Amino acid sequence: MSEQPQLSTTNILQPELKVAPIDWFDYPVRAFPHHTDYSGVVWHGTYLTWLEEARVECLRSMGVDFAELVALGCNLPVMELSIRYHQAIQMGMDAIVRTRIADMEGVRINCDSQIQSLDGDVLYATARVTLVAVDLAKGKILRQLPSSVKDALMKK
Amino acid sequence: MSEQPQLSTTNILQPELKVAPIDWFDYPVRAFPHHTDYSGVVWHGTYLTWLEEARVECLRSMGVDFAELVALGCNLPVMELSIRYHQAIQMGMDAIVRTRIADMEGVRINCDSQIQSLDGDVLYATARVTLVAVDLAKGKILRQLPSSVKDALMKK
Amino acid sequence: MSEQPQLSTTNILQPELKVAPIDWFDYPVRAFPHHTDYSGVVWHGTYLTWLEEARVECLRSMGVDFAELVALGCNLPVMELSIRYHQAIQMGMDAIVRTRIADMEGVRINCDSQIQSLDGDVLYATARVTLVAVDLAKGKILRQLPSSVKDALMKK
Amino acid sequence: MSEQPQLSTTNILQPELKVAPIDWFDYPVRAFPHHTDYSGVVWHGTYLTWLEEARVECLRSMGVDFAELVALGCNLPVMELSIRYHQAIQMGMDAIVRTRIADMEGVRINCDSQIQSLDGDVLYATARVTLVAVDLAKGKILRQLPSSVKDALMKK
Repeated sequence: MSEQPQLSTTNILQPELKVAPIDWFDYPVRAFPHHTDYSGVVWHGTYLTWLEEARVECLRSMGVDFAELVALGCNLPVMELSIRYHQAIQMGMDAIVRTRIADMEGVRINCDSQIQSLDGDVLYATARVTLVAVDLAKGKILRQLPSSVKDALMKK
Repeated sequence: MSEQPQLSTTNILQPELKVAPIDWFDYPVRAFPHHTDYSGVVWHGTYLTWLEEARVECLRSMGVDFAELVALGCNLPVMELSIRYHQAIQMGMDAIVRTRIADMEGVRINCDSQIQSLDGDVLYATARVTLVAVDLAKGKILRQLPSSVKDALMKK
Repeated sequence: MSEQPQLSTTNILQPELKVAPIDWFDYPVRAFPHHTDYSGVVWHGTYLTWLEEARVECLRSMGVDFAELVALGCNLPVMELSIRYHQAIQMGMDAIVRTRIADMEGVRINCDSQIQSLDGDVLYATARVTLVAVDLAKGKILRQLPSSVKDALMKK
Repeated sequence: MSEQPQLSTTNILQPELKVAPIDWFDYPVRAFPHHTDYSGVVWHGTYLTWLEEARVECLRSMGVDFAELVALGCNLPVMELSIRYHQAIQMGMDAIVRTRIADMEGVRINCDSQIQSLDGDVLYATARVTLVAVDLAKGKILRQLPSSVKDALMKK
């Protein structure tokens, strides 16, 4: 069993980069029938689609167009993900997915998200997602983030 | 913002129960077109469907029928989940989702999974999922696991 | 093999009701990574999530809240669906799902949808979906639409 | 609004090819939690994942490996799909997706499916799906099916 270690080896000497101290990016979602399961609330896997949508839009708000990045041959697959479900979301309910780029370590980008009620009074879920920059064609970890991404995300 | 703490308070005094030292349960999966994304490999959220299927079948192999449990009014929603993606899975590829109940703490059940190649030589992903026993109608955490579940999962 | 005919028998004598000659309801969507497949464009099944979302919002715009309807014990499952894919939607692209209630026959509601580009110049897909009013608890076809639904959807 | 007609123009003169009078191909499925919606039964869109899986395996049984075909640059996207839902499938239930290649018209392949109970006594859904052979890179309809596909599917 080879637990591929190459995912982390290329950035050993790269310092952690501070990202701009931006506000959270708010992305609204609504629980439609296809998001739910037999228990009448949103299925736990559905949250990953919302986290992804919020992440893509958060990046766009910072100047990084995900589809363009992919067209240029750079992919940002999820390398690690953890999520905690605090409170169920009923069908028909609205929620806000608050997202921010927490930090970057080499070619890794850590994104934090909080899914909460519109008024901010109820926290439905919290998540951390780690992306890693990859050469789309070869599937190999890049040595460094494309400069367009780094410039967009870095602290000024 | 109220970060609901009730998910963990009901089992403070309950000792960690040892589960039977079972072998891993192996659940085969195959990467179909609908599992993939634009990058040609399995989309990261797809793994949650495979983990769930493997978990349900693992429980069945231990004597717990998930649909029956739900019909009896006990739900086992995911409370926490973490997953690490080691290597991408290409469309058409087969994999094995190895799953076991790692331990139980009160009404929580921790499940470990490893997604690997058929020959066991490549590890695609590792995950830990925490389930919690809930009253399906009320959505409240149960004080204890249904005895049928506890008996089935506990170390003999 | 019993091909259940009961889906259509209860409304034999019920006249086709004319719905209000409303304009199309426009629901915007965007193609995110999880919507795509290995070919780089939106997976054909994804369209059903968009059609559903547009349908629920179209009903809401006419005064029918889907989640409330379900809470009252009336479900509107899809009984029949046909879709034709004209042109692929690339990742990152925006589209409009235009939807309208075409007509009602007894407890059946026929919805038409066109998925097109923002400027209306490209037609990506066309679909017809037939819903049927069902008692949620019993799973049986209702004899008639709830009056709240009929009033909301009927031609004035 | 240009309703792209090119999907059907390239095969005007191509005769309908008779496919081998094969038996139905049976693909077993089981309704897991992620397949269901708030109503406790399988969500209508889930069937498209099952139809796809059955289709891919049906083609494999006839000698066409879908992933290999795509790797060679030929895609078989869905061009048209219609499905009728006869009876709901409850969580935990097993079903069989019976599939066969009904016929080929030029570069189009029509697949019929019946989703039924294991004993064949209950019909859950019936569907017809039309695939079309496309150049994966260019997204253009092919003039003819790759000979490997035609040979595999044609009547001997």
